[in-house]
Parts: sequence; structure tokens; C-alpha cells
Amino acid sequence: MIIVLKPEISKQEFDHIIEKIKSWGLTPMVSKGVERSIIGVIGEEDILRSQPLEVFPGVEKVIPVLAPYKLVSREFKPENTVIDIKGICIGGKKIINMAGPCSIESYEQLKDIAESIKKSGAQILRGGAFKPRTSPYSFQGLGEDGLKILKGVADESGMAVITEIMDPRDLALIEKYSDIIQIGARNMQNFSLLKEVSQSKKPVLLKRGISATIKEFLMAAEYILAGGNFQVMLCERGIRTFEDETRFTLDVNAISVIKQKSHLPVIVDPSHGTGRWNLVPQAAAAAVAAGCDGLIVEVHNNPEDALSDGEQSLMPDKYAEMIKTIRSIAKAIGREA
Amino acid sequence: MIIVLKPEISKQEFDHIIEKIKSWGLTPMVSKGVERSIIGVIGEEDILRSQPLEVFPGVEKVIPVLAPYKLVSREFKPENTVIDIKGICIGGKKIINMAGPCSIESYEQLKDIAESIKKSGAQILRGGAFKPRTSPYSFQGLGEDGLKILKGVADESGMAVITEIMDPRDLALIEKYSDIIQIGARNMQNFSLLKEVSQSKKPVLLKRGISATIKEFLMAAEYILAGGNFQVMLCERGIRTFEDETRFTLDVNAISVIKQKSHLPVIVDPSHGTGRWNLVPQAAAAAVAAGCDGLIVEVHNNPEDALSDGEQSLMPDKYAEMIKTIRSIAKAIGREA
Amino acid sequence: MIIVLKPEISKQEFDHIIEKIKSWGLTPMVSKGVERSIIGVIGEEDILRSQPLEVFPGVEKVIPVLAPYKLVSREFKPENTVIDIKGICIGGKKIINMAGPCSIESYEQLKDIAESIKKSGAQILRGGAFKPRTSPYSFQGLGEDGLKILKGVADESGMAVITEIMDPRDLALIEKYSDIIQIGARNMQNFSLLKEVSQSKKPVLLKRGISATIKEFLMAAEYILAGGNFQVMLCERGIRTFEDETRFTLDVNAISVIKQKSHLPVIVDPSHGTGRWNLVPQAAAAAVAAGCDGLIVEVHNNPEDALSDGEQSLMPDKYAEMIKTIRSIAKAIGREA
Amino acid sequence: MIIVLKPEISKQEFDHIIEKIKSWGLTPMVSKGVERSIIGVIGEEDILRSQPLEVFPGVEKVIPVLAPYKLVSREFKPENTVIDIKGICIGGKKIINMAGPCSIESYEQLKDIAESIKKSGAQILRGGAFKPRTSPYSFQGLGEDGLKILKGVADESGMAVITEIMDPRDLALIEKYSDIIQIGARNMQNFSLLKEVSQSKKPVLLKRGISATIKEFLMAAEYILAGGNFQVMLCERGIRTFEDETRFTLDVNAISVIKQKSHLPVIVDPSHGTGRWNLVPQAAAAAVAAGCDGLIVEVHNNPEDALSDGEQSLMPDKYAEMIKTIRSIAKAIGREA
Repeated sequence: MIIVLKPEISKQEFDHIIEKIKSWGLTPMVSKGVERSIIGVIGEEDILRSQPLEVFPGVEKVIPVLAPYKLVSREFKPENTVIDIKGICIGGKKIINMAGPCSIESYEQLKDIAESIKKSGAQILRGGAFKPRTSPYSFQGLGEDGLKILKGVADESGMAVITEIMDPRDLALIEKYSDIIQIGARNMQNFSLLKEVSQSKKPVLLKRGISATIKEFLMAAEYILAGGNFQVMLCERGIRTFEDETRFTLDVNAISVIKQKSHLPVIVDPSHGTGRWNLVPQAAAAAVAAGCDGLIVEVHNNPEDALSDGEQSLMPDKYAEMIKTIRSIAKAIGREA
Repeated sequence: MIIVLKPEISKQEFDHIIEKIKSWGLTPMVSKGVERSIIGVIGEEDILRSQPLEVFPGVEKVIPVLAPYKLVSREFKPENTVIDIKGICIGGKKIINMAGPCSIESYEQLKDIAESIKKSGAQILRGGAFKPRTSPYSFQGLGEDGLKILKGVADESGMAVITEIMDPRDLALIEKYSDIIQIGARNMQNFSLLKEVSQSKKPVLLKRGISATIKEFLMAAEYILAGGNFQVMLCERGIRTFEDETRFTLDVNAISVIKQKSHLPVIVDPSHGTGRWNLVPQAAAAAVAAGCDGLIVEVHNNPEDALSDGEQSLMPDKYAEMIKTIRSIAKAIGREA
Repeated sequence: MIIVLKPEISKQEFDHIIEKIKSWGLTPMVSKGVERSIIGVIGEEDILRSQPLEVFPGVEKVIPVLAPYKLVSREFKPENTVIDIKGICIGGKKIINMAGPCSIESYEQLKDIAESIKKSGAQILRGGAFKPRTSPYSFQGLGEDGLKILKGVADESGMAVITEIMDPRDLALIEKYSDIIQIGARNMQNFSLLKEVSQSKKPVLLKRGISATIKEFLMAAEYILAGGNFQVMLCERGIRTFEDETRFTLDVNAISVIKQKSHLPVIVDPSHGTGRWNLVPQAAAAAVAAGCDGLIVEVHNNPEDALSDGEQSLMPDKYAEMIKTIRSIAKAIGREA
Repeated sequence: MIIVLKPEISKQEFDHIIEKIKSWGLTPMVSKGVERSIIGVIGEEDILRSQPLEVFPGVEKVIPVLAPYKLVSREFKPENTVIDIKGICIGGKKIINMAGPCSIESYEQLKDIAESIKKSGAQILRGGAFKPRTSPYSFQGLGEDGLKILKGVADESGMAVITEIMDPRDLALIEKYSDIIQIGARNMQNFSLLKEVSQSKKPVLLKRGISATIKEFLMAAEYILAGGNFQVMLCERGIRTFEDETRFTLDVNAISVIKQKSHLPVIVDPSHGTGRWNLVPQAAAAAVAAGCDGLIVEVHNNPEDALSDGEQSLMPDKYAEMIKTIRSIAKAIGREA
């Protein structure tokens, strides 16, 4: 932590700050400059982080030096985390494909989609039973009935399952039917929910909030690791910007930034990251080229009648084409898909 | 809803769209233009909103015409909603002052703050017992012990109480101690929580998410009204932008936009809206001048030792000054404070 | 400047950095921490700023400590700059009103508007002769003919003149007809233009770019002062955010931030800052309450037929009302308007 | 253009609007809905675009239907524009590589860089002689001396030249030395400059403004085409968002959106799009996978001593590696590099 002092700081104010720092068991190091002096307090930054140093008289600003996250960082664990889900390894050489409809609508719908995407190469089936919808008047999901369909179809197709949790009271229910617990973008800082899933033995896919910085995203993941659950995947799914031709702006830079800072696998959602099906394959290709460990894509066999997100769902044939391109690109960068 | 067609749409595609619209019981009105044709479907926009019309072949884009919210809108209820809390009316001529520390730390701390702000003119005491913190290692609040202190001090000072709920399982607890239930910015689209408080008889103060559009903000409030709780206050508390001199950018425009579109009272939080105590009084003054119905301000008697948000907390004497200015401005625009 | 070192830095890398710093005539101060060491180099930060320290092996990041601007800062000049334009003082106790149409369309139009706003209390007449328009097919302004009308009407009404420059080749022309030279938001970092007006003896009103940070805004002004022209006004006119109910988001916080950091007068443009005439008076009121030194407002006598910006122009009677409110608020905060 | 009427519109107001539309030679088509009526006016949208219809009494809002650009659109010219620069074709199957230092510093520096990147596969040499710098105290470029070095080195190496223009008065000078005229992000809406280069016979590379929407970006290009210069390349170089781990957020979605809407070639600048050299190769890979037609990359042989942008410059060996990866990816998607 660096404390930048005001040019006009009094001796009394200065001594007060130095004393306080010592009272926390830390050692201040003072550098006197021409225009300003600064105090460096390195190490044990956590103690300082919780102190509102900026309100001390004579302080101009406080600049943190260390990242606030620990368990999610590469410094804590240099090698990549690989999560094994029924033999599907996420975070290794192979890029993993998760796909399926936005909402589970019926057994027939899901069965049809699951079969086609399995054939194209997807390993994990997605589908929402509890849907976070902007409007209270929109379809809110089939609930447990949906989960039953999801698990049934996945078992029949030999796929693993991912589905979203919205309420901490639903954890046992979600765990019963799903192999991966998804936390949606809107709940990235729902700390009650983060604490709840930190107690689970199941892997968690955490989506980035639409206006979360990478630092906040990693801190949200830190909640889950700090609670004891180290099986966390980080999902970039587009951020909110001023651009309105797309639903969100896929932050392709975030993939490599996170891979540098953290050991956790990075998954990309090009469906929400663009919001338009005819941009999804290009965004997926970009994500793979940039180094992601997996993709989660919305696929629907009949987008015209989809109960949600039809406009950003790929048809199964387009998805098959997309996987083919992804595989070529993966090979071009020394990976597999 | 306006459906803009592609120039190259085939007759078959066109007929398919028209048929679909009729199958939903609606009447399409076609306007043929030089470059493109459009189909207008006015009324019952809700039916169309849930249809992914953009995936129909031949459709270029779909433009909604009506706002998606109903119960929160001025069209539904032209006159201002006034919420009466123990005789304190929010949404009327008088601008209401809510204040207190970010976190409840102890009886002595809160008692001291409550007495001074009550004297300055605040009517409602704020204080957090469950704190949403970016870091799992930061102080998370005193829980029910904090709520007991909060209610005790408020009763002694003759003030009403507002405090934040973070978990749907805590509703009964919060209702027991608080007059107003606050939903924080991070939970604005925590739909489980919105549905839970929609069942409460207590008024709700809903904070705007840091990257929520005004439309999404109103839709979140719609969840609470749709569940039966019409006593909702909307709180502007700053949005996330590229500017980094302030913690957030207070969206002062939002105050008048919301007052035009909705009948619900608008409260402003200049503490989070700026993030720096020495900008709070100016932001509060601006908010009152722009037409808000109340302010919620962080005040601490000893910011240097505050367990959270010290850097944006006003000292009681600065708060007293702020209230004096607010009162002059309120009078200047024909209101009271 | 603080240089944060990587934990794994080698002795050789460390020595190389220390040597380089010394070769620039500066003194490095090293603080060794538990997790990382840092090097503080305080004073003469300009020398370091131009060095790409982040590419040195062993460096994790570089954190600037001092603000990069000098002449515009309050440290350089603690007292407010007051600009005197034909006896109208900008930056003093009195809040100054600039108003007029977006574009100069004809003598009759401008004469009519000028008379009514002069009566309401405006001191300075605005009107564009060279218009920066998003589309090449939109009305581009009357050019010098417009300037002649502008100066003629202002002289008849006893008002001063402000108009926009778009091309460095037009400086002599603009100087001939205008008392204040306006640089628009799109040209805030048109450095050729900034250097050109820095050579002028006329005061400059510099508008903030729609996505310029306050720091960049002040650095753009620094170009003008560094060239020798100290008569600069800074105009907050709304920034680009994700919110789409308004054309821009008026950054009301920026007013007080700039007043704290700089001695230059702050003007606010609530017309562009909202983009809708029925939000302008509230935004103007907020700006005055927050401490601005003047307002620049688009007024049109016949918005229905305006050649540009009709939707954000106030009718003269609404402008008169606005000024009345502004005056009450100014008085409430100890100023005049 | 769709005009949405207020529910409470009077017959007189309605008739007034209809009359006005007819007076412009257009045909209004009225659709009466349950909650609101709308007027569709299709075709010749340009006439309406310049009318401030939103200020007409009874009008709630106006929704444009057609895109405002013409000459840059795929509707105007369905096939890709291919620009031939000394036999280098931009916009065809082959992805073109432009590279070089941010600033031209000396003959030796440039010669050394040019030789290495030419060997790696770059066809076009970049280098700035006039530099847009945030600070007036930073290195501003070598001017014409720099241009001479640039052209000299390029000729010796058999490369084409691209360099930036900042001032409309410099056009002849830039044309003399450069094969492509670059307009920087800060000047994207410097309309004087756009009009000037629209008169040139040389191709133009137009960079996207840091907060320009894709629509505004295309409209800026429209200025150049409308002036007669059809040889325009559009360069995505990152947009400004709230994320601060990177200098800008590369908008990878923009590549495919622009390719769908326009026939012009799309170039990507991963150096500014990330701001950190160790993110550049991944961003470049993503851009190629997403479908761009070329890359412009900052390369420096000695970033430690670079006079500008050292922290985002690749060393020549890293650039060589990057090109190798780019070539594999290009092949994977059926292109060349």
C-alpha cells in the first residue's frame, strides 16, 4: 500500500499516520520527494485494506499495490487447475464444449437438441430450469420438472449436466440433478449464493457480472474457494458497454488476462457475448484462438418457437459447422477440441 | 412492435410471418416503403415480446414500441405514490433524510451518530448488519446482534429504521427489526430476493444496479409490485462508467427521467454516487435541485476507525451543514427538507 | 512514481532498473516487503512518465503518483481564474448564462431568440456557423455568413458571442467575429486545433470529450495553457455510458472534482448533457447546486423547424422559467445568477 | 421512421403531424393500437432524419428504421472492396500485416525494425511522424524528417508505408511520403480532416474512436466516401469501458458486425486494443479467427528506450512467433496470411 501525502501535511498529521501504521504492527517506509512525500507499507496489505486511510488528515490518496485475491491467483498455485467431471477434463489441453437450449421446454425438445449436439462433439448439456428474466411476466422456467428432464436426457445421451442456481435454498435440489452448478452474471456478487455453493462438493461455473471488473470477478471466485470449494470455472460472457449493435461486448482480452492471473479454467459464452446467432461462430472462434478452455453455447432446434433467447440460439447444423472450425483453430494453436 | 423486413424477403417468408402474427390473435399492419417494408403490430405487445421474431427468415430487426413495465408506470397510476412510515411521508412535498453508518459496529457508535443526525434533521436511521463486501476477508456485519442495536437506538432516538436484506431466508428477521427493507445494487436483479420481498408488508428501497439501465431498474421494481407490494422507493446510487476519479458516476438525469416515467418516490445516495466524502454535499445538493424525494447518506462519527466505507462517510458536523444547504435549495424549488 | 517489482525478480534485473533510474538523474528509494518490493521515485515524475518502465524485466507494474497536469492545477494557482469578457466575469460569484440556437439559421431567427434570452438574463449568445454533424448529409452550417449574423445580432442586443471552431485554418475568421472560441467535444483531443487556439488572445471554452476522463480533459486544457493562453473554461457536457434514455449522462460529480483540482471556471451544458428539452431545466438546476460557474443552453424559438438539435432546445418561455429557478438556487448556495 | 404517439394526443396535434409529413412529400401510414397509435413513414428517411419530430406536441418518440449510412453499406455494394497498394491487396483472401514502431525515432531504429518484420512477413511499414499525445510535454514526433526516414527505409525494404495525419494542412506532405493515410481514433470525428482526406487519391485507414458506436464509425467513413475517396479501411482498435486491466477493450464482435454491414476491409490493432505487449499475440489471433482482413501491430527493437508506447510494443522475435500463429489460424479458417 502506498500512501501519498498532501504537500501541505502538518508534522502532527504525519506523526499521527505513522503511529497508526505502527499500531497495526506494520513498518512504514517514508520517501520524501520534491513535490510530495509518500509512505510505503509493504506486506500484510490486508490489514491496511480494511482501514479507511483516505480519511486521515494529510492523506491525498491511497494506492493498493497487491492484488486483493489470494487463492484464485497463480502466485498461490502456479499450475493450471484441471477439473474432472465424469472423465471430462476442463482446464487441460482439450477445449470442452457445453451446449443446449436456454430453457428446458420439454423432453422432446431437449432430447432432439442433445442428440444433435452430442454428435457434433459437445460433452456437457446445458439447460435452464430456473430462469433469471428481466420481466416478471416472462417464462420463468419449469423448475424441478425441468431438472428431471435435463438429467434424464443427459444420462440417455451420455453427457454431463450444467444448470443454473438462483436461490441458496435450491442447492440440494440442483446438486441432485446437475454435475456443474452455474451462477449467472446477475448473481456474481450475490454473496449469500456464493457462500452457499462454496460448501458444495460440485464444481461451479461462475459467470462474470456484466459490469464486473476482472478484479471483482476474481474476488467473487475467491468467496467460493475461501469457503472450501476449489473447483471453479470462470466464464466470460460479455460486458456492458455503449455499443448497441450487439447485446454485450465480448471481452476477448479478459481471457488472456485471467489466464495470466489465475490458475482457474476460463470458459466463454459467445451466445450472450454477442446476443445474435449470426455472430456466435466468429466470437467462438476468437475465444478459442485467444486461449479459452471451453465454450458454452445456446443451441435450439426451433428458435422460432423458443421460450427464451431464440435470437441468439444456433440451429444444430450451424453448431456442427462451428465445432468443425473450432477444431481447426484449436489444432492451429496446439490444442484439441 | 415494429418488424423491419429485409429488402430481399421472399413472398413465402413474408406470408409465414403474417400467419404467425395472426395465429397469436393479433393484427399485422403492413407499410411498404421504397427500400424496405415494415409490419406494425400495435397493442398486446407482451405476446410478441416473448417471441423471438428476429430469427424468422426475412426479418431484419424488431423494434419494441411500448415500455415493458406496467404497474410502476405513470400511465398505470398518474399521481405520485406517497409511502407513510410512522408518519414520515416519502414521495410528497418534503424531502426525507435517511442517514447513518455503513455498518453497525456497536451500540455506542450508533447511539452517538443517531443523536447527532437526528438533531441535524434526519428522520430515518440506516445501518448495515449484513454487508455485501467485494472481499470474503472484509468485515461481513454483526448480523442479528447488529439489528438489535439498530432498532434499540432508533427507538430511543424516535427514528425509523432502514437496513439491507441479502438473503431471502432473512426476510422475517429483517421485518422484525426494520421499517424499510433495502435491496442493494448488487442484488437488483436477484429475482429470488425480489420475489421474497414482494410478499412483505414493509416498504422496500430498491437500489439501482451499477450497470442497470433505467428500464431494467423499473423492471426490477415491477417484480415487487407484481408480487403485491406497491410500497417501493427507487434509489439512484451512481452507475459504473470509465471515469475513475469518483467511485461511481451519479446519474443525476435518472432522477427526472424516473419521475416522468414512474409514480414511485426517488431517493438518491450521494455517498456511493461519489465515493468520496468531500464530494457528497455537492452531489446531495444537485440531487435535491434535480427533484429527488429523499437522500440516504453515510455518516460516521469516527471515519478513521470505520469498519467499512470510511472514505465516503461524512462527519456529523459536515452532515449538519449539508442539511442546511439542502433546506435552502428545497425551498428555492418550492419544496421542504 | 512507484515501481512494483515481481516476486521473482533477479538481482541483475533489479540492478539494471536502479542503474537506469540513476542515469536519469533521479534517486530510487527501495522498500522491501514480504511479498514484493517496490521502488519509489518521487519528484521529477515527468522524466519517468516518458519511460516505458513496464517493459523492463522484473517490473510488474508502474503506478504514477503525481497528476500529469501542472498549469491547470490548483497547486500551481490556488485562487480561481476569473475571465473577463467585456465586463462579464466568468469564474466569480455570479453564474453566467450563455444561450442560443444550435445552428445560426437566419438573422430573423437569431434576432428573435437573442432578444428573448437577453430579457431572461442571458449575457452571452451562442450559435454555430460550422457544425460538426455525424452525417455528411446533414446541414453543415452557414459558415462566415452565419458568423456575420451572429456578431450583428449580439452587438444589437448588447451580448457577447461564443461560437465553435472546427478547423485550425479558421482561427482568424472566428477571432474576428467571436468573443469566446468554443472547441467541441469531438475535438477535445484534436491537438492541432488545441495548439492553434493556444496562440490566440481570445478566451477558449473547451468541451469535455464524450469519453474523456477528467484527467484527460485537464490534460487537453494543459495544451492550451502550455501554449500561452490561460483564459480557458472547462465545459462538462455529458459522457457516454450504457444508459440510453438520455443522449448522454451528465457527470454532475465532475463539476466538484474539477473545481477541487483546477482553478479554471467550469461551465455546464445541460442540453447535450441530457439530449431532451424536458430534462434540461432539472439538469441545469443540479449543475448550479453542484457549484458550476455558468451554463450554456440551446434555445430555439421554433424547435419544430430547427435545422439541428431541435429535440434538446428549450422554447424561450421555458428558458425564462429555468433562469428564475437557477437564480433561487444560486442564492440558496450564496451565489448569484 | 416510426413516430410513436402519446396516448393523450389531441386530434389537432395529430392532424398537424400528418400535414407536416405530407408537406415534405411523404406518405404517412397510421396504425391504431390499443394503447397507442403509430405513424410509419417509410422511404426517404433522410428527409425525416433532419426534422426534430420529437418536439412536435403529441409525439412520444421517434424510431429510425433505416441505417443512416449509404455508400459504405453492403446494400449499396454487396461485394467486398479490395484495395490494391503496390500489389498488396487488402480485403481479399490474404490477411495483410502492417507493423512498425509507434514513433519514428531514427533511421537506425526504423531500419532495424523494418528488416526484421519484413522477414517475419509484414508487408506494410507503420511509423508516426506526427504523434497525438495526451500530454503537451510528451514527444510529439519528428515531423517531415521522420517521414523522410520512413519512406527511405520502406523503399529499401520493399515495403509500403502507412502514417498518421493530424492536421488538414499536412495532406500534401503526408501524400508525398505515404501510401496509406491513417486517421487516428481521436480524430475519427474531426470532420475537417475527414473532408480533406476525402479529396485524396490515396487509401485511408480510419481508426474507430474510443467511444464511437459502430454506426458512428461507419458514418465517419461515409464522409470520406461521400467526398469521392472510396479506398477506406476500417480499423478496430479497442473501445473505452470500465475495465482497467487493459488499456482498452478490443471489440472483437465489431469485426463481424462491420463485415456484415459494410463492404470495406476491416483491420485490427491489437496493440492499442490491449495496451500490453504480453496480450497482443492472443488478441491478434482472436481478430484473425473472427474474420479481420489485416493487422496493424506496434513492434520495437528496444522497447525499454522507445519514445512512446513501449509497454505495448512487441519485440521482433515475439512478432515473428505471432505471425506464425496467425498463419496457422488463417489456414484453419480458409484464408492466408
